[in-house]
Amino acid sequence: MCRWMTYSGEPVLADDLLFRPVHSLIDQALHSKLGATTTNGDGFGIGWYGEGDVPALFKSTEPAWNDENLRELAGQIRTGLLFAHIRASTGTPVQRSNCHPFRHGTWMWMHNGGITGFPTIKRELVGAVAPELYPHIEGSTDSEVLFYLALTFGLRDDPPAAVERAVGLVEEVAAGAGIRHPVQMTVATADGSTTWAFRYSSVGRSRSLYHSTHIGQLRRMHPEVPVFGTLPDTARLIVSEPLRDMPDAWAEVPESCWGMITEDGRGEQHAFAPRRP
Amino acid sequence: MCRWMTYSGEPVLADDLLFRPVHSLIDQALHSKLGATTTNGDGFGIGWYGEGDVPALFKSTEPAWNDENLRELAGQIRTGLLFAHIRASTGTPVQRSNCHPFRHGTWMWMHNGGITGFPTIKRELVGAVAPELYPHIEGSTDSEVLFYLALTFGLRDDPPAAVERAVGLVEEVAAGAGIRHPVQMTVATADGSTTWAFRYSSVGRSRSLYHSTHIGQLRRMHPEVPVFGTLPDTARLIVSEPLRDMPDAWAEVPESCWGMITEDGRGEQHAFAPRRP
Amino acid sequence: MCRWMTYSGEPVLADDLLFRPVHSLIDQALHSKLGATTTNGDGFGIGWYGEGDVPALFKSTEPAWNDENLRELAGQIRTGLLFAHIRASTGTPVQRSNCHPFRHGTWMWMHNGGITGFPTIKRELVGAVAPELYPHIEGSTDSEVLFYLALTFGLRDDPPAAVERAVGLVEEVAAGAGIRHPVQMTVATADGSTTWAFRYSSVGRSRSLYHSTHIGQLRRMHPEVPVFGTLPDTARLIVSEPLRDMPDAWAEVPESCWGMITEDGRGEQHAFAPRRP
Amino acid sequence: MCRWMTYSGEPVLADDLLFRPVHSLIDQALHSKLGATTTNGDGFGIGWYGEGDVPALFKSTEPAWNDENLRELAGQIRTGLLFAHIRASTGTPVQRSNCHPFRHGTWMWMHNGGITGFPTIKRELVGAVAPELYPHIEGSTDSEVLFYLALTFGLRDDPPAAVERAVGLVEEVAAGAGIRHPVQMTVATADGSTTWAFRYSSVGRSRSLYHSTHIGQLRRMHPEVPVFGTLPDTARLIVSEPLRDMPDAWAEVPESCWGMITEDGRGEQHAFAPRRP
Repeated sequence: MCRWMTYSGEPVLADDLLFRPVHSLIDQALHSKLGATTTNGDGFGIGWYGEGDVPALFKSTEPAWNDENLRELAGQIRTGLLFAHIRASTGTPVQRSNCHPFRHGTWMWMHNGGITGFPTIKRELVGAVAPELYPHIEGSTDSEVLFYLALTFGLRDDPPAAVERAVGLVEEVAAGAGIRHPVQMTVATADGSTTWAFRYSSVGRSRSLYHSTHIGQLRRMHPEVPVFGTLPDTARLIVSEPLRDMPDAWAEVPESCWGMITEDGRGEQHAFAPRRP
Repeated sequence: MCRWMTYSGEPVLADDLLFRPVHSLIDQALHSKLGATTTNGDGFGIGWYGEGDVPALFKSTEPAWNDENLRELAGQIRTGLLFAHIRASTGTPVQRSNCHPFRHGTWMWMHNGGITGFPTIKRELVGAVAPELYPHIEGSTDSEVLFYLALTFGLRDDPPAAVERAVGLVEEVAAGAGIRHPVQMTVATADGSTTWAFRYSSVGRSRSLYHSTHIGQLRRMHPEVPVFGTLPDTARLIVSEPLRDMPDAWAEVPESCWGMITEDGRGEQHAFAPRRP
Repeated sequence: MCRWMTYSGEPVLADDLLFRPVHSLIDQALHSKLGATTTNGDGFGIGWYGEGDVPALFKSTEPAWNDENLRELAGQIRTGLLFAHIRASTGTPVQRSNCHPFRHGTWMWMHNGGITGFPTIKRELVGAVAPELYPHIEGSTDSEVLFYLALTFGLRDDPPAAVERAVGLVEEVAAGAGIRHPVQMTVATADGSTTWAFRYSSVGRSRSLYHSTHIGQLRRMHPEVPVFGTLPDTARLIVSEPLRDMPDAWAEVPESCWGMITEDGRGEQHAFAPRRP
Repeated sequence: MCRWMTYSGEPVLADDLLFRPVHSLIDQALHSKLGATTTNGDGFGIGWYGEGDVPALFKSTEPAWNDENLRELAGQIRTGLLFAHIRASTGTPVQRSNCHPFRHGTWMWMHNGGITGFPTIKRELVGAVAPELYPHIEGSTDSEVLFYLALTFGLRDDPPAAVERAVGLVEEVAAGAGIRHPVQMTVATADGSTTWAFRYSSVGRSRSLYHSTHIGQLRRMHPEVPVFGTLPDTARLIVSEPLRDMPDAWAEVPESCWGMITEDGRGEQHAFAPRRP
């Protein structure tokens, strides 16, 4: 099972999000991702918006907890929109091109979950990707194909509708191949200013997804947590894993929902329903 | 430009083929591959038949000349059929799944050259791969797609005909996309007992391909070359690069030709002509 | 905490030792090493005697469970004496030269444990290594320094005495630096025919160490375990980790003991006592 | 032979220094380092001052020209003091801890050249490193030992004197071991505001070292070179390799010299003479 987080808000140091001391909020969120006890050792990646419009990616097949370059860079990257992803491979090779986040132009995408029976239906799904987008697929994961299907169906114009159509197509193709409940996903995507997150599974029991509650409140409630003092009021976090010991810091995104967080910190949440072709 | 070699004959140590002292035959063949002066630093691979019917692969994205594991293994691998390949990427990522040789069942395949305009026609070429073979494609190279096209067209039954049909398809698809002279290749493939090699380019100016002349003769002519004393009489080598200073050791495979070397060391050579669909 | 195993006996395939199906003996021994639930992701290594007198090493900083080359090679390596080690770094860099087993001439060495306060006393310990051996130290671990101290004190002539002197020196130097209980170790070393194993800690609570009981008996007692049918009667295994569900397969090496297994499968066990300089 | 460059001046994007188009000044300087024709494939590193006082390091054992992370980061790193180094190993392992630049506190250090007979005299040289500095040595290169000797002899207080004493010690120890002409070096070191460069060899034939002439002049002389328009007037570059086709852009640092460039762009140049203990 992969794990991921997104940050949006005023620019902060990636180190404050990824490597802060043990009792910090984010450290807890990332505990099983970047800590010594994790099994998510199949590569990792971060993506962030900094210089220029196109997000930068740093990805590696080393376990994140061993990667000295990651620690170095986390202390230098100051960004207002960061994605971080820890991969647990479901079979495709452990290689940089299979590490999340994926990027196309100014867009980033990352995914936790999988498409059941992907080897069986990959050919048909890939065939549905727009011919002009197809050559940009670099790796071999279901996650990246889902991204390119969403791009094909208009991600850049209407992200929720495009993801609904992409998921609908996967469900349609899977049904034709006799595969039940093909989609399991929590997805995050961003264009540099807005972040969208999706929680959905065909079977109706999706992997978890949480967003942060107001940092200002948390700062007042938990003066003992240093990172609350570091993160700005505008900080908005979305994480794939619940926090056991600070339940008031997180709100669960409901089943079959998508949400968005705009540049100025406003959030919305709506129902998600796949649209079959 | 990639470089490769094949060995077939009585079992020898891979070290005798890959890392023998400076004036040895194979050392010269591999000089620019494994030596300090090469630019072929985009990964390498070896494949060999040993235990079991399926060939074993050792591939790495480290430059071959730095790979301590390769040096260790070369001293332990004893085999009668070895492929070695040094990659120079033409754009696809430097990752293990893009390193040659490729394998399917008992078959190995490696390639020097490229398909012009591959990003443009990849989608159509991949669409022509047999659906049951498609999920086995692991990397993103033109070389691997060519292998799966050849498998689709019957590589396991009639290798020369299958490669002629695969190349014919590529030329047909490329023509449809307005791409001239799409194929440039020297290819080697093997099933565990026989090795086939192909030299062809659409433009009629193929990259070089050489096979060894009789080792017994060379041993008599060049008693000063130690590796001639090590390699058995049955040794047959095919290499992508000419040797400058031992011309009598190598015979050039002519333009638009394929050859085969059987387990007992017999060789054949025939004309190669793409078959369009 | 590192984990390791040694095999000695008639030649077997490394695959039978490292990757056999879920209910096999060795699979259980290695479950937390090579399986998906381990945290031992800081590199691994295997060493074995094959061609020539010098053991071959295959080491990588990839997690062992991700390393496709390891899986390939395990199916090709047939050996009568194998070391396998999974590293959990205690601070020194994750790099090949810090992966076990270490090698000097025909000798291999691997270690689980550590030297407390190593950064403080490293300079003095390294200074005690014989000048002619010193340049052969390649990495930066305490484990390798312990190996070179043992070599300095006569490992090649009398392994138990040499290790007792090496450990004695470490304890002496540590005492001088005010460090209590400096040594924690289970160590294996071999010369190509005999394997020695050591269990010792300054504090008297050493990490665990087990050796296999007679495979012939186990085969009769557990006909349902396929690997018992594969391994020869001469098979002798030493492992750092107990097996929870097959207690009759393993005997614990007592605290402060060393044991040896000769080429013909005979074993001895003796008390271990550090010898201060 | 390693290659390196330093940049100091107003903050610029690392991309402008490392990856600018073919006809740019720096591209030429780095041509054989980062280009496709190089043999410097034994790892690389960059170090720069950004957030905080301690420089950040990004190092990898991948060839620099293959490293996608380097390309990504070069587009994001904006710095006023950058070191870049491409390694050609002279025997020590290709591993991150052997890649330059090295760092201690706020200081960086990189080196082209080597210490002749280093394996023979390493023990004595390492023994001369201050005990409190010794544990910080991470790798196994002569270059890093030279750095720690310089730190031992007061690099942080008087860099030229400290390097003169470090080199003097190496020559003294080498003489005692019968090694002639032990030191070959071009070295760069920096503390975050000032950069020092050294050109020296015991034999009196040092590897090359160049510094840029005034960028403002070059901009006027070469309006056709885009990077001259990008780099600020304060830009000061020191490079290990001459540029063949823009001789007016570079001035050679003479044999047995050291130079320094301060934060405000002023430079000095003095004679360098080893000081034996």
